[in-house]
Amino acid sequence: MLTKADIARLRSLREKKHREALGLFVVEGEKVIAELLAENFPLLEIYATPDSALVGKATAVTPAEMARISHFPTPRSALAVGRITRPALESGELARGLTLALDDVQDPGNVGTLLRIADWFAFDRVLCSPECADLFSQKVINASMGSFRRVRVITPPLAIALSEAARTNTPVLGCDLGGAPVHTLAPLRDAVIVIGSEGRGLSPAVRALVTQFVTIPQYGRAESLNAAIAAAIVADNIRRLQK
Amino acid sequence: MLTKADIARLRSLREKKHREALGLFVVEGEKVIAELLAENFPLLEIYATPDSALVGKATAVTPAEMARISHFPTPRSALAVGRITRPALESGELARGLTLALDDVQDPGNVGTLLRIADWFAFDRVLCSPECADLFSQKVINASMGSFRRVRVITPPLAIALSEAARTNTPVLGCDLGGAPVHTLAPLRDAVIVIGSEGRGLSPAVRALVTQFVTIPQYGRAESLNAAIAAAIVADNIRRLQK
Repeated sequence: MLTKADIARLRSLREKKHREALGLFVVEGEKVIAELLAENFPLLEIYATPDSALVGKATAVTPAEMARISHFPTPRSALAVGRITRPALESGELARGLTLALDDVQDPGNVGTLLRIADWFAFDRVLCSPECADLFSQKVINASMGSFRRVRVITPPLAIALSEAARTNTPVLGCDLGGAPVHTLAPLRDAVIVIGSEGRGLSPAVRALVTQFVTIPQYGRAESLNAAIAAAIVADNIRRLQK
Repeated sequence: MLTKADIARLRSLREKKHREALGLFVVEGEKVIAELLAENFPLLEIYATPDSALVGKATAVTPAEMARISHFPTPRSALAVGRITRPALESGELARGLTLALDDVQDPGNVGTLLRIADWFAFDRVLCSPECADLFSQKVINASMGSFRRVRVITPPLAIALSEAARTNTPVLGCDLGGAPVHTLAPLRDAVIVIGSEGRGLSPAVRALVTQFVTIPQYGRAESLNAAIAAAIVADNIRRLQK
């Protein structure tokens, strides 16, 4: 049985300002919570309804209580609370391996899908500009299909972070309709791949720091591809060319 | 000023059974409707609010009326009605060019995105199994970003259509985690690429007709990629290898 204060606190985590104030985020779903437990991911609180396989490892709540604390219109059978951690960019870090940088990608479904892509292609880190959808929102966590916990995500002012790439002569690839075809890129071991916002593309400050524009060859007449689709195709080509 | 009967009829088109009964679908948004008009796409009715650039070419409606007829929670400034056409698969057609086949892809956003991908990569046609999200639902049309009108979409029983591919010795590629790496496919001029449903993958009847399984090489730890992401990467590799 949850207190009114518990319910109010868990519901408040739907909003970024409350998540930041408390340093807490919510993750929902039996499968992902079971995976987090198996990995000893630090979860501060776990709630489960009687039909959940997690019920022995969680505080039991009624379906009505779960509906009140859930961040989704259709609640899952389990909900957990974790502590927000925000790693800082280390000096010289961008010179090592592959970085996916998101320049104001505002749709949380896109940000979550991009984390899943970064995880699939083993990117070393993801940079999210402060205007991106919040990593700890439920929609991002949900769309990442569990990848949120495996990807190192840093949220720096993006132009400052990319200046750091310039200092170490790390290539910064910008996805843009006018770039060189991604099929014929030179092999890259270390690189930053920047994806612009859905509506406006790359911001001027970020564009100025791009060392090479790449484009996905177009064969038909669609005007553009979705940001996550473009990132996935570029990532696949970069990994293919590394061999 | 719309009559009650008009409003009821336009609202009823939110449901597939009413769209099928009337043979009509709705498309919303000033940009896409202007493009359709510029291409002489046959639109039977056009409605626009006073702030729309289409107001001279449309029946004027108030924002309140638009809110009632719109299929979206947040209505656009223009709405048009078109006639549903459902082309039939021609004999031997699958032996010519590239076909994207969707095996019970149920999320309308995924189906719309897949139409956009088929358009970008100039697929000759898309086959949607009858259990796929309905092509003429507003979410599919919206997610296709205008591509719905440029892609030839056929909705046959998929296993029967793929038997037709077998008859003409056309390769049927199935996207599956256990397939051959897509990077090293032999060049294909004519092929069917089959994408399974989000949850269950390829259905057994379709799987039995696949001549070659392909997979996207995985470098990290995400369990899977979204259906549209997988289709886009396979399409990019097939087009690259055709050169």
